Amino acid sequence: MTTTTLQDCQSLDEQDPLRPLRDLFLIPEGTLYLDGNSLGAMPRSAPARVADVVTREWGADLIQSWNKNGWFAQPKKVGDKIARLIGADPGTVVATDSTSVNLFKVLSAAMSLAATDTPQRKRIVSERSNFPTDLYIAEALCKERGFELVLVEPEDIAAALSSDVAVLMLTHVNYRTGAMHDMPAVTAAAHAAGALMLWDLAHSAGAVPVDLTRAGADYAVGCGYKYLNGGPGAPSFVWVNPRHAERFWQPLAGWWGHATPFDFTPDYRPAPGITRYQCGTQPMISLAALECGVDTLLAADELGGMAALRKKSLALTDLFIGLVDERCQGHGLGLATPLNHAQRGSQVCLTRDEGAYAIVQALIARGVVGDFRAGDGARHKDILRFGFTPLYIGFEDVWTAVEHLREVLESGEWKRPEFNTRHAVT
Amino acid sequence: MTTTTLQDCQSLDEQDPLRPLRDLFLIPEGTLYLDGNSLGAMPRSAPARVADVVTREWGADLIQSWNKNGWFAQPKKVGDKIARLIGADPGTVVATDSTSVNLFKVLSAAMSLAATDTPQRKRIVSERSNFPTDLYIAEALCKERGFELVLVEPEDIAAALSSDVAVLMLTHVNYRTGAMHDMPAVTAAAHAAGALMLWDLAHSAGAVPVDLTRAGADYAVGCGYKYLNGGPGAPSFVWVNPRHAERFWQPLAGWWGHATPFDFTPDYRPAPGITRYQCGTQPMISLAALECGVDTLLAADELGGMAALRKKSLALTDLFIGLVDERCQGHGLGLATPLNHAQRGSQVCLTRDEGAYAIVQALIARGVVGDFRAGDGARHKDILRFGFTPLYIGFEDVWTAVEHLREVLESGEWKRPEFNTRHAVT
Repeated sequence: MTTTTLQDCQSLDEQDPLRPLRDLFLIPEGTLYLDGNSLGAMPRSAPARVADVVTREWGADLIQSWNKNGWFAQPKKVGDKIARLIGADPGTVVATDSTSVNLFKVLSAAMSLAATDTPQRKRIVSERSNFPTDLYIAEALCKERGFELVLVEPEDIAAALSSDVAVLMLTHVNYRTGAMHDMPAVTAAAHAAGALMLWDLAHSAGAVPVDLTRAGADYAVGCGYKYLNGGPGAPSFVWVNPRHAERFWQPLAGWWGHATPFDFTPDYRPAPGITRYQCGTQPMISLAALECGVDTLLAADELGGMAALRKKSLALTDLFIGLVDERCQGHGLGLATPLNHAQRGSQVCLTRDEGAYAIVQALIARGVVGDFRAGDGARHKDILRFGFTPLYIGFEDVWTAVEHLREVLESGEWKRPEFNTRHAVT
Repeated sequence: MTTTTLQDCQSLDEQDPLRPLRDLFLIPEGTLYLDGNSLGAMPRSAPARVADVVTREWGADLIQSWNKNGWFAQPKKVGDKIARLIGADPGTVVATDSTSVNLFKVLSAAMSLAATDTPQRKRIVSERSNFPTDLYIAEALCKERGFELVLVEPEDIAAALSSDVAVLMLTHVNYRTGAMHDMPAVTAAAHAAGALMLWDLAHSAGAVPVDLTRAGADYAVGCGYKYLNGGPGAPSFVWVNPRHAERFWQPLAGWWGHATPFDFTPDYRPAPGITRYQCGTQPMISLAALECGVDTLLAADELGGMAALRKKSLALTDLFIGLVDERCQGHGLGLATPLNHAQRGSQVCLTRDEGAYAIVQALIARGVVGDFRAGDGARHKDILRFGFTPLYIGFEDVWTAVEHLREVLESGEWKRPEFNTRHAVT
């Protein structure tokens, strides 16, 4: 095995056709940002676009903006852009509300569908290490409707698909480990077992190629502020396979999902298609920032789109894994992320029996921003999580990050008290 | 009856102690904005504050902002500010999600409470002319839970409070007519009948004094983008009387409502108090604009607060009603808003058998921005709606608005084709 050098990394950057895309972002000087999986970096276009929405659209055009500046259509306009990243047809995605709220909508809809078509099916299956809010929402709905939530380890999913399962609900890329499910295969398995398939794309939309239509999935939600670079708390998105969109409604039946909201009729009549998954008025300023973020991904279209981004993402995570292996030997680091490309998202998660939190803090103090996720003291160890967003991370960045990690470990600086004081984490 | 003159109006402005507050807003030159009841005007502080959130908090501080810039606490911080405007204790209000979503939460909670305490009560009573999204959400929840939604006219509410009513759900100030309920009396009547009382404050928070605690109400929601001036689609707010806050949970049980969200446990354990009414991550950029809006109302504190704002609001609406009566006689205008101060919000709604839509359009073309609400062809006539926000509307503005209305009616310019082409309205 040949040793990778800084020069190798620099020449990979020089040959990288996606390199110009990093200029779409403003990354602070001195920061090496490996946390785009938690909060995407700010697109260079966002400040001016947001200022325009505030000053011109709100301040000057005032109430007329609902029509004049397209505010009403904005959730569907942004939804159509996101659709291009996840293999969805135009008019089947809407950008609205939070991921938790959207999950509530589609899981409600799926449970209603199951209650009619397959009333004997009363189980929702998910992964125990799914992102917790997904589990909380599912737990609440199961409690409301007399369903049972069954949580299993990833390797036990297939066996859990018994004849009483109504919905299989999974996050495509695991937030802790970066492990990715085989979407077409898992969807096919769910369908073969007679269950509906619901995907949370929080860590995959904009990070890996997704083709919901080809996989034949039933429902999906995803996050606007991670790989879509939509800004803090950006609205989420929701997709429903057109074959279900008009069957049943979801109980968050607000006026934006009404067929004719401005008739102000007292009775609810759901709009056709994905529109009925809207509920109330959306935060237009945050939605404008989300559109800037989605546009950074669409800017890759001429350079090969999500396929090219994926190729670079894998090269980046391969490089990181390889360099950690070469240069950080003997420091007790483990790898929680699969080596197999087909099972890897766009992040790498390292483990360590002790000090994971402090090492992350010491790296942040050096300007290398990753994050920490606590283990459970059993199956899951503490994790050092590093996201590699191919839009703005380069190969030399990977080299530099690993060098900092090596220095933090070799110097023992992570043992300093200031790196060992816990505060709330994201 | 003496005739009011322009000079009278100008001298009222000169004597108005709240006059300086209009400098807190940037209103476009040439616009007389009487639609703050639909979308509040932009606070002068909003562009810089929003730019700071985008450029410094998101762009520079990135993920660290969750702690460093207080993003996690923002919904409760803004909630505490709103609490001061609605007679709520600190720690009992949270600014989050949309009004429709928040209504779903509190109505769910109320129905759960009733199902345990008074299981024989299976009715929700509301007003037929309540804002439709409230009725849609109630309709959905009734369908889900086997309740019945009973819609009545305002004069029939008392009679509808039978022994099978679980919740009385009303909007404090009617969006179409500006008619205001007597909150303490109606709340007491609901309680006397054994029902819970839920208020929607969309057209009253920031518009009229509200004291939820003194009224002893059970639940309330309200809008951030109307009289709170929070910007298009600003997050809404939700209040729960502390006596209920920890009884039962609402099914939108997302991670922001968890007792320890960053333990990432698979089981939901609701946080104490109002925190459990949070669900998912909130749009921080829009939330910052909302705080600017709420601050414009708190700026009135030293000048007499909501009581002083109310006094001016009534003087403005009295003046408008009086001037329309004096100067627009013989043009077929009626008044849908109560003359009785105790029953009037901060808007005045005029009726006309024909041409209401076109008259509003002709006024907008003159820079006088009100809005139109269609009637139902029966009880409710078409409405010309004018909101009077005492923070930025003056007495001469009222004179000017009425003069434009008179000229539009006398000249017949509203009959022009361009004012009679309908488009989507807000």
